[in-house]
Amino acid sequence: MSDIRVTVWNEFRHEKVHDAVRQVYPEGIHTVIAAGLREHGFTQVRTATLDEPEHGLSEAVLAETDVLTWWGHMAHREVSDEIVERVQQRVLAGMGLIVLHSGHHSKIFKKLMGTSCSLRWREAGEKERIWVVAPGHPIAQGLGPYFEVPECEMYGEHFDIPAPDELVFVSWFQGGEVFRSGCCFHRGHGKIFYFRPGHETHPIYYQKEVRQVIANAVRWAAPTLAYPFAYGDGRAINVKEPLEPLG
Amino acid sequence: MSDIRVTVWNEFRHEKVHDAVRQVYPEGIHTVIAAGLREHGFTQVRTATLDEPEHGLSEAVLAETDVLTWWGHMAHREVSDEIVERVQQRVLAGMGLIVLHSGHHSKIFKKLMGTSCSLRWREAGEKERIWVVAPGHPIAQGLGPYFEVPECEMYGEHFDIPAPDELVFVSWFQGGEVFRSGCCFHRGHGKIFYFRPGHETHPIYYQKEVRQVIANAVRWAAPTLAYPFAYGDGRAINVKEPLEPLG
Amino acid sequence: MSDIRVTVWNEFRHEKVHDAVRQVYPEGIHTVIAAGLREHGFTQVRTATLDEPEHGLSEAVLAETDVLTWWGHMAHREVSDEIVERVQQRVLAGMGLIVLHSGHHSKIFKKLMGTSCSLRWREAGEKERIWVVAPGHPIAQGLGPYFEVPECEMYGEHFDIPAPDELVFVSWFQGGEVFRSGCCFHRGHGKIFYFRPGHETHPIYYQKEVRQVIANAVRWAAPTLAYPFAYGDGRAINVKEPLEPLG
Amino acid sequence: MSDIRVTVWNEFRHEKVHDAVRQVYPEGIHTVIAAGLREHGFTQVRTATLDEPEHGLSEAVLAETDVLTWWGHMAHREVSDEIVERVQQRVLAGMGLIVLHSGHHSKIFKKLMGTSCSLRWREAGEKERIWVVAPGHPIAQGLGPYFEVPECEMYGEHFDIPAPDELVFVSWFQGGEVFRSGCCFHRGHGKIFYFRPGHETHPIYYQKEVRQVIANAVRWAAPTLAYPFAYGDGRAINVKEPLEPLG
Repeated sequence: MSDIRVTVWNEFRHEKVHDAVRQVYPEGIHTVIAAGLREHGFTQVRTATLDEPEHGLSEAVLAETDVLTWWGHMAHREVSDEIVERVQQRVLAGMGLIVLHSGHHSKIFKKLMGTSCSLRWREAGEKERIWVVAPGHPIAQGLGPYFEVPECEMYGEHFDIPAPDELVFVSWFQGGEVFRSGCCFHRGHGKIFYFRPGHETHPIYYQKEVRQVIANAVRWAAPTLAYPFAYGDGRAINVKEPLEPLG
Repeated sequence: MSDIRVTVWNEFRHEKVHDAVRQVYPEGIHTVIAAGLREHGFTQVRTATLDEPEHGLSEAVLAETDVLTWWGHMAHREVSDEIVERVQQRVLAGMGLIVLHSGHHSKIFKKLMGTSCSLRWREAGEKERIWVVAPGHPIAQGLGPYFEVPECEMYGEHFDIPAPDELVFVSWFQGGEVFRSGCCFHRGHGKIFYFRPGHETHPIYYQKEVRQVIANAVRWAAPTLAYPFAYGDGRAINVKEPLEPLG
Repeated sequence: MSDIRVTVWNEFRHEKVHDAVRQVYPEGIHTVIAAGLREHGFTQVRTATLDEPEHGLSEAVLAETDVLTWWGHMAHREVSDEIVERVQQRVLAGMGLIVLHSGHHSKIFKKLMGTSCSLRWREAGEKERIWVVAPGHPIAQGLGPYFEVPECEMYGEHFDIPAPDELVFVSWFQGGEVFRSGCCFHRGHGKIFYFRPGHETHPIYYQKEVRQVIANAVRWAAPTLAYPFAYGDGRAINVKEPLEPLG
Repeated sequence: MSDIRVTVWNEFRHEKVHDAVRQVYPEGIHTVIAAGLREHGFTQVRTATLDEPEHGLSEAVLAETDVLTWWGHMAHREVSDEIVERVQQRVLAGMGLIVLHSGHHSKIFKKLMGTSCSLRWREAGEKERIWVVAPGHPIAQGLGPYFEVPECEMYGEHFDIPAPDELVFVSWFQGGEVFRSGCCFHRGHGKIFYFRPGHETHPIYYQKEVRQVIANAVRWAAPTLAYPFAYGDGRAINVKEPLEPLG
C-alpha cells in the first residue's frame, strides 16, 4: 500500500471523438491508468482533464499532488501557458512528473527539457520490444530482461531530448528503429520520467508490464527533499553575511 | 589560428551608467572578451549588443555564427522573446553557446535549461579559487590544478540547473561557499558551456586563465554535426515507410 | 523501521594501536556506525572486521547482506584479493556498497571504479562545510542546504574517480580546497555511494547529519532488481535462437 | 592531416588459424584498421600484436602513443597482467583508448570499467542498423541519422558496463535485440570509446562509415590535458601547507 498522492492527467479528447479510441478506453485513458495504480496499492489517486476548470490543476490540487502523470496528444496547444508555468514550478519544488507517450510534445515536457523533444514516428501497428538497460534501477523492478508490446505506434531516434540522467529502457521496433523509451531527469528538486509506450488506439495501459513500470516510476518520483525549494519566485538569494570571515 | 566564427554578445548597459564599471571596461565587456579571443588566434570575432536592432542578432548574423558568447545582467527582461526563440533554435541546430557569469539568469539560458537557474550570491570582493575536477577535458587544457580570481562576486550552491553533462570546474569561495562553475550541456545538436567567473566591477575578463578557458570553450562548442537538425519547425517526422518489412 | 540487512565492515586496526583513536572509538568505528543505523530504525545490522576469518565476509554473510558499508585505512593491502573479488561479484549482482572516507583507496573501491581513486589530503583538524548540490536526491533527505564538520582531515580535488552518476555533495574546506564528497555510482545491478566525512581521530560518526546521510544511503543502495544478474561467471550469454525470424 | 600518434593493437590469432578469417583479413585486422586511419589523414600510425615481445606495447611505444585501438577475441587471457596495468596507467595519464567489438571482454576494458562487461551474443550473420542518438557529438561527425552493417555478429543488452558518460550510438538487430554500441567514458585524464561493430569473419573494417567513426573517435580521444597526471604511483598527495590560513 502506498499513500503517495497521484494525479493522473489526461487530455481526454480522442476518447470523445474517435470510435476506435472509445472502444479501447471508453471512460478515458486516465481511468485506466488510475486503475493500474490502484491495482498496485496506491490509495490516493485522482484524475484531472483538459476541459475541467484550470484543466483540473488548480493550485490546491497541485499542492496535494506528490506525483503527476501526463497524457496528451491532439490538444497540446490548448493547455494554458499559466497552468504549464504552475506545473513547472511545482516540479522544481519537488513534485514528480511522469510523461507518457505522446506527452513528449506537451508544453510542460518541452519547457522542462529546453529542446524540441521531437522524434520520428510511424503508425503501423508494429511490434515493440522494450529492453532493460539498467537492471538495478528501481523503475525496472520486477521486469525481465525485456518485455513486448504486440502492436504500437513507433517512435524512433533521434529523440531530441537532453541526455537522460538515467537511461532505463531502449526499444526495438519491427520496422527497423530504436528509441530511448525510459528516461529519468532531475530538474530542481523534482524527478521526471518519460515512458514511451502507450497510444490511444492500442490497449497498452491495460498491459501488466506497463502498469508495473508506471507504478515503479511513481514510487521513484515521489518527493524526497533535503529542504524546501528556495527559488520559488525565480530570484537569486542574497546572502550578505559570509559564513566565514573575509580577512 | 582558428576560423571559428564567434559572436560576442553583451547587454552593454552597466558600462554606460556606472562609473565603476566604465573604469574597468571603458568600451564594454564585449570588446575585452573579443580581444581575449583574438589573442588566442580567433580571426572571425564580431560583437553584438542589446540596443542594436534585433539586439545585433539578426537571422543573418546567427547564420554566420558558430559560437555565441552571452553576457547580461541588469536587463535580461528587455531581451525580446522572439530573439531568444531564434537563438534557441540555432543552438538546437548546432551553434555553440557560452554563457558567462550573470548570464545564468538570462532568458536564453533558463529556456535551454528548463529550471530557475537561481543561486545564492554575495557582492563582497572576496577571493575565488577555481578547481579543475575534469583534468582531461578540452576546456581545462593548459590550466594547472586550480587558478584564483583575487576579487569576485560570490555565487553559491544550490545552483538550480540540470546536472551538467560534464562538470569541469568547482569553485571555492573565501566566505564559505562552493559552486559548480564550469558546466557543459548538450541540447539538440548544440553544445553549451556555463562559466561562472566575471563581473562588471572586477577586471576578470583581462585575466589570463579566464581568457584561456573562454578560448578553450569556444573551440569545444564549435559545431561538429552528424547531419543537419531535423526538427527545425518543432514537428515530428512521419516515416511512413518502415525500414524493415512488417510481416 | 527497516529490515534491510546491513553489514558494517571495519578494518579495526587503528583502534587497537593508537590511543587517540581508541579514545574516540573505544569499541571500534564499526560499532558506532552500526549504532547510528540502529538509531535510524535498521533492525538487521551486523558487523565484520579484517582480522576475522575471511575478514568476516564469508559467502554466507554476503548472501545475507543487502548493503555493505566499508571503512578501511592503514591495511588496505591486507584485504585478500579473493574476498575483494567476491564482494565485487556481489555488488554486480545487486548488493549496495557504501564506501566511507579513507575507503577511497580500498581495493574494492578501486576495482569497481577502474581509476586510481587518489586525491590530495591534509591532516590539520580544519573545518569542512558540506553543501547539498542535489537537494531532491534521496541521500540528501532531511538535511538543510549544508552542514558542517567542525574538525576533519581534508580531501581535495582532483579526486581521480569516474564522473559520478549522481553528485549529491560538494565540500568546502577552510584551507582552500573543494571535494566531490557524496558520489553515486551504478555498477552491474548494484548501487555504490562514496561518502567523504569520517576520520579515526574525529568523532564524525557520532554526528547527527553524518548518521542521517549514511542511513539515507543504505536505503538508497538496497537492491531493487529487474531480474537476477545474468553474468555471474563473467561469461557472455549465447542466445542462439533469434527473437525475430532472420529472413 | 593529423599527427596524432596512433598504435593499432590486434590479437592477430584468428587470422593465422581460420581460413574464413584469413580470406577477409589476409594480413591481419590491424593492417586494415591502420589503412582506414591513413585514409583519413593520420600520418603516425603503427601496429602492435599479442605475439610480439611485450605484446608490442613496451614503455617506449606507449610513451609515444596518443591513442591506442584494441582488438582481441580468443586470447584475452594471454595478455599479461603487467602490460594491462601499464596500459591502464597510460590511459589514466591521458592516452586515448578505442576498444573495438570483442574487446569488450579484454582485460584492459574490464579493468577500466570495473564491471563484467558481459552481454548477449549470436553469430548468425544478421543485419545491424546503427542509430546516432547524439548527432552533435564529434564521434558522429559526417554520418547520417543511421548506417547499416549488412552482416554481423549480434551483441545484445543488457551490456554490463557503467552508464556511458556520453552515449553516441544505439544498434538495432534483425533478430530482435538492441545495444548501446558507441559509448564514451572518461577515466583519469584519459578518454575511452567503445565501438561495437567489427567481427573477424565480416569485412566491417573496410566499411566507409565504420572507418569514419574510428577516425572521429581517435581525434576525440587524443589527449587534451589540464596538467600532468598527479597520481602516477597510485598514492595520494599530502599537501601539508593549506592554501588559506587555518585561523
